[in-house]
Amino acid sequence: VSRSALILAGGSGTRFWPASRRLRPKQLLPLADGRSLLARCVERLAPLVPIEQVWISTTAELAGAIAAELPGIDRGRILAEPTGRNTAPAIGWAVGEMPQAARAGAIAVLPSDHRIGDEPAFRATLERALVAAEAGHVVTLGVSPRWAETGFGYLELGSPVAGFEGLRRVAEFREKPDLETAQRFVASGQHVWNAGMFIFRGETLLERISEVAPELASGLAAIRAAPARATDLYPKLPSVSIDTAVMERIELAALPLDCGWDDLGSWQALYELLAGDADENRTLGEAVAVDASSNLLFADQGTIAALGVENLVVVRTGDAVLVMPRARAQEVRRIVERLRDAGRDDLL
Amino acid sequence: VSRSALILAGGSGTRFWPASRRLRPKQLLPLADGRSLLARCVERLAPLVPIEQVWISTTAELAGAIAAELPGIDRGRILAEPTGRNTAPAIGWAVGEMPQAARAGAIAVLPSDHRIGDEPAFRATLERALVAAEAGHVVTLGVSPRWAETGFGYLELGSPVAGFEGLRRVAEFREKPDLETAQRFVASGQHVWNAGMFIFRGETLLERISEVAPELASGLAAIRAAPARATDLYPKLPSVSIDTAVMERIELAALPLDCGWDDLGSWQALYELLAGDADENRTLGEAVAVDASSNLLFADQGTIAALGVENLVVVRTGDAVLVMPRARAQEVRRIVERLRDAGRDDLL
Repeated sequence: VSRSALILAGGSGTRFWPASRRLRPKQLLPLADGRSLLARCVERLAPLVPIEQVWISTTAELAGAIAAELPGIDRGRILAEPTGRNTAPAIGWAVGEMPQAARAGAIAVLPSDHRIGDEPAFRATLERALVAAEAGHVVTLGVSPRWAETGFGYLELGSPVAGFEGLRRVAEFREKPDLETAQRFVASGQHVWNAGMFIFRGETLLERISEVAPELASGLAAIRAAPARATDLYPKLPSVSIDTAVMERIELAALPLDCGWDDLGSWQALYELLAGDADENRTLGEAVAVDASSNLLFADQGTIAALGVENLVVVRTGDAVLVMPRARAQEVRRIVERLRDAGRDDLL
Repeated sequence: VSRSALILAGGSGTRFWPASRRLRPKQLLPLADGRSLLARCVERLAPLVPIEQVWISTTAELAGAIAAELPGIDRGRILAEPTGRNTAPAIGWAVGEMPQAARAGAIAVLPSDHRIGDEPAFRATLERALVAAEAGHVVTLGVSPRWAETGFGYLELGSPVAGFEGLRRVAEFREKPDLETAQRFVASGQHVWNAGMFIFRGETLLERISEVAPELASGLAAIRAAPARATDLYPKLPSVSIDTAVMERIELAALPLDCGWDDLGSWQALYELLAGDADENRTLGEAVAVDASSNLLFADQGTIAALGVENLVVVRTGDAVLVMPRARAQEVRRIVERLRDAGRDDLL
């Protein structure tokens, strides 16, 4: 039986502006030891899922850039949504587009914009998830929390699933908690971060969609029946997440995942990952620091020179330079909003 | 009788790195209301000295860039030293290269890398200097000090020169003083900043050189006698400043100059000159500031985005980005030294 992966690479975002742009979102940035997160996401699946069994879900806008980043993947396996919708239509449609042989086997649906430090550990857990999926379970990999993060959703673990070591039923989806709740979750040992990784037989997922999301199922069926009309029909699919539309409504199982997972949510998160020089400046690209310490210096071309500054993020990519304190890395969207308001789409 | 100007445009420096580079020194930067200091230096002479009577002294390395910046000046009037020397050989040689008709009249020797706020006032003082020079005086324009600057040399004013309003003999050249001395100089009203501006008849200067700098005079004569050998002979001229070799040794007169002169010695000096936005960010080029104040933002292309930072200099020019506190603007040379030590002449 084949094992496949469906990599979700349609995302966009502004947290890594100005490195991330509309046509070069985070998953295409070289944030994984010089490789893009997307390329690394595909590469780390081997040998568990060979590249010939990898499909990519993305948007029409990004398809060209993704194809260029992944020369080993036939263009036919890069599935571009007619228009960008939410994850439920994207995954449902893409699974339907995959060949029957792939749909009949287990499919690992994986986001492409995360970093994983311990890849053998990741593959070992994924292997167990694939085995459970092949037995008919819909499985999620839930990241064992390393701190009381309030920016993620959590999954509350329930009773063990017999026959699969470590596999637990998901008792409840918990939205982003406040700090106190997050601390309680972490202390309990019964909660994991929802990292959006799902493993199932394709046919199983399509059945579940039919059962719990009939509007989505019929919309997807209409597109399959008239693929020439996909451009008209796709935008009419309900824009809901796979969590809300499907996963929260079915019997879902979880495997805790302990593999140095990092969602790289900001420039500050990147700073924390990189190794520093003697003054704790951490650099991607070329930089010179004099009497400067604890800065993140990121240049996709040219050189950054920092003198006498501390705890800054300095990014130069393409036609934009960003300077801000590391502690305010979450606020980069304010710059993006300002540029959008000013009609400067050329910088976004 | 003709009146001419000899603009000194051979200088190089690092204080405006990374905007200033070997082939684009300060005088070529657009620091004068969008125009280069050099272009503005030439333009402000009209109608007192028309552009047809302007010569440029520079180096072979810079001659092309200077010609491009000054399309109104015939290439033949851009006098490129065979190799860069100090100001005494540069001025002596250039005056010798100027045509007899220009040498017979008054010549204003003017640095090209300063800013002048009140151009009519400058021209009015220069006019008086030209008149005194035509009568045989060697005249300098000394800037009336506006604060107790320790980074400039001063001229101590002596007795009045009869027949020329405001003209004073220069009693003494004073090297860069300590702060206490500088304060005394300013309080005295008898000292002016030495701004390197000299006005004389060309023939008068050459006579003075013969009298007080015979080695330079004979070297210049040898080059004039065998111009084909200039490349060999020029480097043998003594490398001395016009102040030391000539001006300190002759009867020199000074006219105080009060024209908003600024030597623009650093990024901080540029900050002080520019108008700010509501948050006192001062910008050349394109920038976006959010919750950021009192920064100098300079971009020759692209956009600088500053978020949550204060009192910084952020410069993006060509392939380099510089970030430093404004208060440390004088230390930019440390970056330049680091790059030089690293063999990164491509960035200098």
